[in-house]
Amino acid sequence: MTLARGRDSVRAPMTVQLEPVPVHVPLPLGFRAAGLHCGLKKAGQFDLGLLLADEPVAAAAIYTQNQLVGAHIHVCRDHLTRSGGRVRAVLVNARNANCATGEQGIADARTCCRALAERLRCPEEQVLMLSTGPIGAPLPTQRIVTHLEALVAQASVDGAMDFARAIMTTDTYPKALHAATTSRTTGFAKGSGMIHPNMATMLGFLLTDGRTQSTGATEQLLRNVADRSFHRVTVDGDTSPNDTLVLLASGRSAGTDLEGAVTGLAQRLARTIAADGEGATRLVTIEVRGARTEAEATAVGRVIATSPLVKTAVAGRDPNWGRILSAAGRAGVTFPAERARVWVGAADVYSGGKPHPENEPLAHRHLVEDTLVTLGVDLAVGTASADVWTCDFTKDYVQINADYRS
Amino acid sequence: MTLARGRDSVRAPMTVQLEPVPVHVPLPLGFRAAGLHCGLKKAGQFDLGLLLADEPVAAAAIYTQNQLVGAHIHVCRDHLTRSGGRVRAVLVNARNANCATGEQGIADARTCCRALAERLRCPEEQVLMLSTGPIGAPLPTQRIVTHLEALVAQASVDGAMDFARAIMTTDTYPKALHAATTSRTTGFAKGSGMIHPNMATMLGFLLTDGRTQSTGATEQLLRNVADRSFHRVTVDGDTSPNDTLVLLASGRSAGTDLEGAVTGLAQRLARTIAADGEGATRLVTIEVRGARTEAEATAVGRVIATSPLVKTAVAGRDPNWGRILSAAGRAGVTFPAERARVWVGAADVYSGGKPHPENEPLAHRHLVEDTLVTLGVDLAVGTASADVWTCDFTKDYVQINADYRS
Repeated sequence: MTLARGRDSVRAPMTVQLEPVPVHVPLPLGFRAAGLHCGLKKAGQFDLGLLLADEPVAAAAIYTQNQLVGAHIHVCRDHLTRSGGRVRAVLVNARNANCATGEQGIADARTCCRALAERLRCPEEQVLMLSTGPIGAPLPTQRIVTHLEALVAQASVDGAMDFARAIMTTDTYPKALHAATTSRTTGFAKGSGMIHPNMATMLGFLLTDGRTQSTGATEQLLRNVADRSFHRVTVDGDTSPNDTLVLLASGRSAGTDLEGAVTGLAQRLARTIAADGEGATRLVTIEVRGARTEAEATAVGRVIATSPLVKTAVAGRDPNWGRILSAAGRAGVTFPAERARVWVGAADVYSGGKPHPENEPLAHRHLVEDTLVTLGVDLAVGTASADVWTCDFTKDYVQINADYRS
Repeated sequence: MTLARGRDSVRAPMTVQLEPVPVHVPLPLGFRAAGLHCGLKKAGQFDLGLLLADEPVAAAAIYTQNQLVGAHIHVCRDHLTRSGGRVRAVLVNARNANCATGEQGIADARTCCRALAERLRCPEEQVLMLSTGPIGAPLPTQRIVTHLEALVAQASVDGAMDFARAIMTTDTYPKALHAATTSRTTGFAKGSGMIHPNMATMLGFLLTDGRTQSTGATEQLLRNVADRSFHRVTVDGDTSPNDTLVLLASGRSAGTDLEGAVTGLAQRLARTIAADGEGATRLVTIEVRGARTEAEATAVGRVIATSPLVKTAVAGRDPNWGRILSAAGRAGVTFPAERARVWVGAADVYSGGKPHPENEPLAHRHLVEDTLVTLGVDLAVGTASADVWTCDFTKDYVQINADYRS
């Protein structure tokens, strides 16, 4: 029996793959990245990553809502306040969450930031650090610090995939995506269990060379993006004490519709998290339509997306309208069940207050044949809508999480 | 592929048994009960039950909070209002929820109530009806009505176990309990999945020969009892459209502390539901201590009790303090994680802001050797407490719910 806990077990490859695992992902103008092995994971596996801006850039972060928070969150909050939202570098380690480590944990995170700031000749508050992995064990600070020089030396415009690999825990593939419009945006994420909205989710990094007008505007941009992306993905309803989403904007290009571009990329990233959910065989998009407000639509979508009965039904390829409607019905949102509509893929399985068994073979085939599955409900009380993403709930999820210690 | 859905599959016997399955359970003064096979379940299995009071008795009911509600709930509400909370009989059928059946379903429930009232020569509003089972199929009203005469004829003071068997769905054993103090109380429950607080839980029946002073007092008694019993048990966080708890008080004895007596019995019943949870191998009592209020303690307990990571950890016999503390931390209740304490059985596994790996072997042994498991957390912000009951989350739960249609 060991002390350390967390999500670093080795998993079989994923069933659901949304896009090919990228060989190379470009970075926006003004950024470099790196990743290497510093001795936290098994030999040869990257476990320390760096995002480096050429100059201090606009930055914002949002954090877990959990009462238990990792040491890095104290330090990130403090540094962003002291720097006025300007950041040169973001350091990330995997295989140790530096959580439930008391005052020493906070001191350890500060030591790492300070050591990196010295090498970069920048104020320490312009360095952020994030940790992910098992909780309860002291951070091996020395192993990290002794590798900072190599990490900085290695940082390059071609380093995105090295960084993406360094932040993986139980992820079965590195999650890095790029989109170019009038600005360029690159996003990274890690996480495949303990995934639930409200930034108790995962580590996420959004880099753009677009321009924000103020610190307040950077923070507002990040909140708007998260509300429509990472806050709409759930694997198991459980949340982690460490999870953090960071936005860095270098301002090197003057692109238009920055929010649209970053939101689009963040949604694609969020979907990769659900697709790579522990034990998942289906990426499930919950479409909520006909709601009074987007917030109510999201609330209904989240309850359906976390329902064990809905998620086991998808695992069993069962177009179970009763479970979907029952889950919608307990979201705290009023609607007339007799006027609601439920669909599975293209098949209308409940409407007019009645099930439609004649359409169930079509719905069943959708669940059997497609790995990207759609479940929908129309609440018939308005025109607002939201999509929420989740995965099916299989025996493999239980196995992964029950057998974690063995 | 069939239309009907629900929880009537046959399951292997339970692992956790709190008390021996009773051979005989007495009824309080003034009540009779019956159960028989009317043709809804397989031949020979009881599927129609009756609770009969000698005279109209004080009655109250609370219902699912789900937006989707079974037809019987409309009828129960209406009848209790019209009768001023006086009831002669409660009719229950299993294997058909009469839910998502539209206006016809409500008419069908009224037909059954009226037919029974005619046989009892009482006003129809003094008859309640409850249904449980798969949703979406029309109620086979005729099969029920043609068996009412036999059911009434059979009703006796020795009929409790017949009634308990008639209301079973995926339950692996009939849930009936009796307690006698200065009054007598008998309780029945059914349910082993789709179990979650707020009366979206199950069917429950509490019969007492104690006396309530008014209709309002009967309703308040039931709410107080439910808040400390059925509202503190969860199997999967999912809720059913039909679930209903009924209290009948004949007033034939003038016992003292009626609330204490009924609450105690209801808590024992609630624990049997968690113990018989689908796939369960452990009954888990979540002890929350040191909270500001009982409501906050209950909220924290419920989040721990529904956490898939906590419940799979128990299935894996893993005393995972990090998952317990993380679940407590996302209940919307503020507390200082560094002052909180977490225990598993008698073993202190987290306190003073640090885990205690030296105590984990003792905690592990508790999970391996005992089927009645205790997980506790002290929030260190007050003196209020609450216990919440749940079960572990096993691959068998997924199997039962994924393979339901096959």
